[in-house]
Amino acid sequence: MAAYNIASGPASKFQRALNKPDTESTKIPKAVVSRLSLYLREMQQLLRENIATISSTKLGKRLGFTASQVRKDLAYFGQFGYPGIGYKCEEMVAEIRKILGTDRVWPVVLVGCGNLGQALLGYRGFSTQGFQVIAAVDVDQSVVGQKIEGLTIKHIDELTHLVESLGIRVAILAVPAKAVEAAVEHIVASGISGILNFAPVTLSLPRNIGLVEVDLARELEQLAFSVLQNAER
Amino acid sequence: MAAYNIASGPASKFQRALNKPDTESTKIPKAVVSRLSLYLREMQQLLRENIATISSTKLGKRLGFTASQVRKDLAYFGQFGYPGIGYKCEEMVAEIRKILGTDRVWPVVLVGCGNLGQALLGYRGFSTQGFQVIAAVDVDQSVVGQKIEGLTIKHIDELTHLVESLGIRVAILAVPAKAVEAAVEHIVASGISGILNFAPVTLSLPRNIGLVEVDLARELEQLAFSVLQNAER
Repeated sequence: MAAYNIASGPASKFQRALNKPDTESTKIPKAVVSRLSLYLREMQQLLRENIATISSTKLGKRLGFTASQVRKDLAYFGQFGYPGIGYKCEEMVAEIRKILGTDRVWPVVLVGCGNLGQALLGYRGFSTQGFQVIAAVDVDQSVVGQKIEGLTIKHIDELTHLVESLGIRVAILAVPAKAVEAAVEHIVASGISGILNFAPVTLSLPRNIGLVEVDLARELEQLAFSVLQNAER
Repeated sequence: MAAYNIASGPASKFQRALNKPDTESTKIPKAVVSRLSLYLREMQQLLRENIATISSTKLGKRLGFTASQVRKDLAYFGQFGYPGIGYKCEEMVAEIRKILGTDRVWPVVLVGCGNLGQALLGYRGFSTQGFQVIAAVDVDQSVVGQKIEGLTIKHIDELTHLVESLGIRVAILAVPAKAVEAAVEHIVASGISGILNFAPVTLSLPRNIGLVEVDLARELEQLAFSVLQNAER
């Protein structure tokens, strides 16, 4: 399989803006990046409704933000709005995807092929977002060699070799709590740039590795609590 | 199948505290409830490390909070700490699970049995948290009648009947964006108390229905962005 080129295509003006030195003044707050996902989702929804442009006021109203919040958030990344027109949805979708990095293909390795890992392999949303699982590893010899969703599971000792030869940048971590420490050691040693963590443990990683944690147990607890509260009203 | 009894077992003093009238002064901030999950996870980890008690200072240190933050958060739910001892981990785990409502069995219906729904059915974490998927519905006649993970998929028109006859309280929503509106109408009409939403759409629901949204697309976008930023440093 060919290695993927992550940073392909000419850099947009927004990427160039991101290339500025990483000083306090240019660092983009996490909350703003998180809201970019909301703007993207809303712009995609507007396109489905055949709406081509939208003002910051109307966009804010749909999302429960003030117009100035919308303008301030998007100003971090460049000048998007057109006077008297507002934002052009199609352009915005393309630009936000470029900023977020979901306009390209990210080769991914799945670490942990138990129930959760196998469930995640069946989730088509990863490839929709450009995350393509091209390798899967596990520590359990009884699983190694099996085929799931077209991938032959390799032993985790092969991780560094796989990462280097396939140009893999991201790992999906889906191992049980007790296996996390050993798995993370392998991942850090392999040169991976980012981890999507489904394991129910908070990870501490070197600063140069991106981390996003998905804690389904936590979501379920929050849901149970809100149902309980409603029941007791 | 027998109906489940949600509010079984004697109410703890903390549940009684929750039963106080829902005024502004007794309403527990969402952020505090969200941190309860973190305290629970850390207490479970301490037990695995054979640590039976912990002070608020040490607990805070492990989680990156101040000791007073820990004490203030837990004080919402009652008096947990013992002078000179700190918190007893085993007691805390049991009490927090009781407060959150994950100490009991929640019967669940899966709404949407496409790729995502089927992946979720394979996720054992739901039952670990007491969420037991006992019914599955879809709108697609070519899927209705099929068996997945031991469940026969029913038509969504049967939802209200299933909810009432099986005592179901929670729905997992796993339909594509375009099917969300119709599915939510069915769910609201069925008398469900809480929704765990995996669909990539923000829902507006009646206030008496609990909602937790899981946006994997958003998590993936945040991950892509953090990897990009690291690459460009």
